[in-house]
Amino acid sequence: MPSDVYDDPEFFRRYAELGRSVAGLAGAPEWPSLRALLPELRGRRVVDLGCGYGWFCRWAREQGAAAVLGLDGSEKMLARAQAMTADSGIAYRRADLEELQLDERAFDLAFSSLTLHYIQNLAGLFATLHRALVAGSRLVFSMEHPIYTAPSRPEWVTAGGDRTVWALDRYLVEGERRTDWLGGNVVKRHRTLGSLLNLLIGAGFALSHVEEWTPTDEQVAARPEWAKERDRPMFLLVGACR
Amino acid sequence: MPSDVYDDPEFFRRYAELGRSVAGLAGAPEWPSLRALLPELRGRRVVDLGCGYGWFCRWAREQGAAAVLGLDGSEKMLARAQAMTADSGIAYRRADLEELQLDERAFDLAFSSLTLHYIQNLAGLFATLHRALVAGSRLVFSMEHPIYTAPSRPEWVTAGGDRTVWALDRYLVEGERRTDWLGGNVVKRHRTLGSLLNLLIGAGFALSHVEEWTPTDEQVAARPEWAKERDRPMFLLVGACR
Repeated sequence: MPSDVYDDPEFFRRYAELGRSVAGLAGAPEWPSLRALLPELRGRRVVDLGCGYGWFCRWAREQGAAAVLGLDGSEKMLARAQAMTADSGIAYRRADLEELQLDERAFDLAFSSLTLHYIQNLAGLFATLHRALVAGSRLVFSMEHPIYTAPSRPEWVTAGGDRTVWALDRYLVEGERRTDWLGGNVVKRHRTLGSLLNLLIGAGFALSHVEEWTPTDEQVAARPEWAKERDRPMFLLVGACR
Repeated sequence: MPSDVYDDPEFFRRYAELGRSVAGLAGAPEWPSLRALLPELRGRRVVDLGCGYGWFCRWAREQGAAAVLGLDGSEKMLARAQAMTADSGIAYRRADLEELQLDERAFDLAFSSLTLHYIQNLAGLFATLHRALVAGSRLVFSMEHPIYTAPSRPEWVTAGGDRTVWALDRYLVEGERRTDWLGGNVVKRHRTLGSLLNLLIGAGFALSHVEEWTPTDEQVAARPEWAKERDRPMFLLVGACR
């Protein structure tokens, strides 16, 4: 559970300065692609796993969701989310996603943004979500891509003197990865893309879309430094049917 | 269509010396994992896309398959397959997989080993296979993994002076990749793993297994140089239901 680092004051201060923390969904370049995987939300009951500041919870309500439950492991995150929210249709709850319990058939959509790469017991979480979702409903999530989490040292290196390449190693070696991010020691759980998809299939989900995010030409025109994101995927987006 | 290079005499001579050409299925380290995805073959009608020397066709018949159709773009391959086969239950046919036509509901299993990374019109091929397979049947294939096909120069490089890493770039840039292999200029069609899976889903297949091949501990003990295969996947194995 990553809540320890998210509750560290210095880490939390730096996290608060990130573009996606300040600007919300509009500050996340992968958001348009992720949004495209979502079903119509009007009247739906939604659960958001790793809700952070609650940006998605509030957006879901703006789209007409009947009720939204935002879950996060960090008290600081939830306090900030609560402070930013004035809507009785949204409930925030502290939860350890490693051992989550949810009511059966209580939701029409499960959503998660950039959280599942922290989870060790993903089989257990997917089983819980399968029980908590009604038949025909959706699970939509983003997470860090396995190509991004795999390396022993996640970095760009120079190859042959003229190319900058992603230094990929240990892709097939699943398990813990410790990286420094925003001054905090962050623990991720690396698994291959195949393992991730097989866990979803094994839990009873049918895969409907698998996307490795890449910036659009418009995004690269506006932010030329994003061209590098076409060399290796940072984000994985998945849509699945219950 | 890669048949041009496979029909080049010098390329064909070198191909014939490969472990997997000489020893057949037993010479392919990923074969046990691929075999595990196959359904019971007794009485089934099987099509093999890119049959090469016909190793899988003959194996399928040994497992009791009722009839096997082996397709390949290379005349030399088919001549060799025919010479190695004495079984009226196996038919070999030259076919361009870019514009394959098959009878409707004519097969119970479609199989392909290390061929689909050559195909440009994969949407067309998957649509043809969906029509050619009966309901409830399987599509099982291996292909070169997108991480393996992506780079502008597929190679290991030294990073930080102490690690050998896979020089990954251009993963999100789909399209043609030209590499030298066995002295021939081989043209592959790189697409992301997400794109590949979405093509399958779009054609009406349900994904049942996605595996990025890695050597077992026993394989690495027998062939220590294979430990490097754990740093990046060379083969992708997929099982899908019609």
